[in-house]
Amino acid sequence: MSEDAIEIVARLGREARAAADRLAVTPGEVKDRALYAAAEAVRNRCPRLLEANARDLESAAHLRASLLDRLRLDEDRVEAIACGLEGVAGLPDPVGAVAASWTRPNGLRFERIRTPLGVVGIIYESRPNVTADAGGLCLKSGNAAILRGGSESFHTSTAIVEALHEGLEAAGLPKACVQLVPTRDRAAVGAMLSMRGAIDVVVPRGGKGLIQRVLEEARVPVIGHLEGLCHVYVDGAADLEKARRVAVNAKMRRTGVCGAAETILFDRAVAESHMPAILEDLIAAGCEVRGDTEVCAADGRALPAGEEDWNTEYLDAVISARVVDGVEEAVRHIQRYGSRHTDTILTENDAAAAHFLAHVDSAIVLHNASTQFADGGEFGFGAEIGISTDKFHARGPVGAEQLTSYKYVVRGDGTVRP
Amino acid sequence: MSEDAIEIVARLGREARAAADRLAVTPGEVKDRALYAAAEAVRNRCPRLLEANARDLESAAHLRASLLDRLRLDEDRVEAIACGLEGVAGLPDPVGAVAASWTRPNGLRFERIRTPLGVVGIIYESRPNVTADAGGLCLKSGNAAILRGGSESFHTSTAIVEALHEGLEAAGLPKACVQLVPTRDRAAVGAMLSMRGAIDVVVPRGGKGLIQRVLEEARVPVIGHLEGLCHVYVDGAADLEKARRVAVNAKMRRTGVCGAAETILFDRAVAESHMPAILEDLIAAGCEVRGDTEVCAADGRALPAGEEDWNTEYLDAVISARVVDGVEEAVRHIQRYGSRHTDTILTENDAAAAHFLAHVDSAIVLHNASTQFADGGEFGFGAEIGISTDKFHARGPVGAEQLTSYKYVVRGDGTVRP
Repeated sequence: MSEDAIEIVARLGREARAAADRLAVTPGEVKDRALYAAAEAVRNRCPRLLEANARDLESAAHLRASLLDRLRLDEDRVEAIACGLEGVAGLPDPVGAVAASWTRPNGLRFERIRTPLGVVGIIYESRPNVTADAGGLCLKSGNAAILRGGSESFHTSTAIVEALHEGLEAAGLPKACVQLVPTRDRAAVGAMLSMRGAIDVVVPRGGKGLIQRVLEEARVPVIGHLEGLCHVYVDGAADLEKARRVAVNAKMRRTGVCGAAETILFDRAVAESHMPAILEDLIAAGCEVRGDTEVCAADGRALPAGEEDWNTEYLDAVISARVVDGVEEAVRHIQRYGSRHTDTILTENDAAAAHFLAHVDSAIVLHNASTQFADGGEFGFGAEIGISTDKFHARGPVGAEQLTSYKYVVRGDGTVRP
Repeated sequence: MSEDAIEIVARLGREARAAADRLAVTPGEVKDRALYAAAEAVRNRCPRLLEANARDLESAAHLRASLLDRLRLDEDRVEAIACGLEGVAGLPDPVGAVAASWTRPNGLRFERIRTPLGVVGIIYESRPNVTADAGGLCLKSGNAAILRGGSESFHTSTAIVEALHEGLEAAGLPKACVQLVPTRDRAAVGAMLSMRGAIDVVVPRGGKGLIQRVLEEARVPVIGHLEGLCHVYVDGAADLEKARRVAVNAKMRRTGVCGAAETILFDRAVAESHMPAILEDLIAAGCEVRGDTEVCAADGRALPAGEEDWNTEYLDAVISARVVDGVEEAVRHIQRYGSRHTDTILTENDAAAAHFLAHVDSAIVLHNASTQFADGGEFGFGAEIGISTDKFHARGPVGAEQLTSYKYVVRGDGTVRP
């Protein structure tokens, strides 16, 4: 059984390599034609997608409601998948773009030009729209994709990949540009993580269990996605109205996304003036507050927080809260407990903001804005595969440009080195 | 014994992390002050450096001449080390540089700002100047460096690091910004490769044995340096004089560097007009030619090449040579046998050049210029740790900018996500 999964992934790898070599020199308009045709195929196949999704939902009836909701497709969500593919098609082609150019005193002309990475493996969990987003972004960036979706969404993902294949064929591109691992055998994940040379980079997107397995087993480069333990710091010079608006949005707009705030820190200077109203807003919005003694004293509905609360990504309507002595202690708290994903400072004091933005070592640091902006679409990247908390290769939202490498093109005139 | 090496590396890692946190927010002028002071210390300590080097040379008397030459310091080379540090100091500070900025319709202002990677491990072989180059580049880019040099250069590297420490102290920075692994125990290399979390990235720089070990053992991200199996392709539209000049320079300027050409390909169209003169030039310069039947027929001094010759990085005055049917077959040969390092086309035909530059998937592709330009200094990077043949994170020369990551700084005005 395991042997089969390894053989299957090896075959996908060989086919993906041939497709990647072709894609690397495919003009942007051909890739875009495939993406637009795939969007059209998604729309035309809507009944088939919903039917496949119904099969997945039936087998997944034991899952909790929030997971079932992530898995569920309806006509609006199918339309959103099609629009997503068109959005990716409309982005500029990253491949071949000149990222830098300069001339040296000896007359040599240098260009740094974006190139695809090659074969990208994506290992993800239940949301089936990732199948289209990841496949589309890989195609746009000239990479062949090997997709390994969650087993709960197997039929839905298969139906989405069939639509992508229809788009590829319409543009004269091989189906192997986007492949779904055609087995639910978990050994396939291990095979993908170990196939150095066959897969150039793996992008994992999922919960702690998956990320832990990837960190332990990966022998291929990984663009990592850790949890999003995001903080809101309400500084002593925060504007109360902005702080109320941003705090509730950062926590409650959607609680299940990686950019949702999990901890709110209050400067002691605003513990009396700002904290009660913000706690009131959060609780009124349906949020449970777990606070230190000062927070609990300020609002009797707050529960006492334990050490583990500062380390917990709730992904739910729960927030931990404490009082700190100014921006420096806020930074220390975030550096100690945060996951280096996304953190925001609310302040009208430029010096405090500058200190926070420079010293918080996270992929995304914000000033007077909600952590829920941690999203490739909100950055203007069109779409994303996820948010990287790695510092290596790509950090923050991983869109089409982040799935590229580069090469140097150097032009001379019979130029030799002395 | 092995236990000791692991403990030592763990301790260096902890000290490096504290230094890296400090360096990440150290202004450029402080880092530059340390680099200039280190250069001065290298000059002042010249007698001590030569004495340490003499001890290394004595123990290394059994090595072959070319390796001894790489190991040897003299007054000129010590001066070159000092100048190298000053050159790095003179580069712009990559940290804090705004690599991109844009504003979204909702008013959010985005900046992508370069940040250090953190703790960089460098594992290298005998050339002691790498100690100064790598230490200096890491310091410039705000990274703490853990250096593991070749055991042959142990005393020389120790003396160089003492000079770097003098520079760090003069600028008020901790010595742990640049540390040399203080043991020759090879278990230290394994420890560096496995310490995920303690070391953020390893840069290996050495021969096949080291690279193989790194590929097998590394559990931390690696900026890879494979061999340089570089090609010169003499196209049917090549200018004879330029081709003669570049071919001899690419092979013979220095034969031991990774950018030295190892194979020359002749378009059949110039097998009679250009090939004999170029073979004559190479042989006259002291190069052994190993050719296919057509090359051997053209010059009786050429030896027959076997399949293994196309796969061999000679790093010596030897070149393999064959006739191909135009640019497409040249590209196929390079894609099959090359190491994706550096390859050049010699032609006056723009279409042939464009095909070659687009289809040869190497870090550096050149048109009418010598492969020996594969060097960070020649690119204008000031210095380099090596040439990456990876596509992940950094490709081509690895200088200060390539040792950075980035973060997003986002500014709003109480901005929330709908």
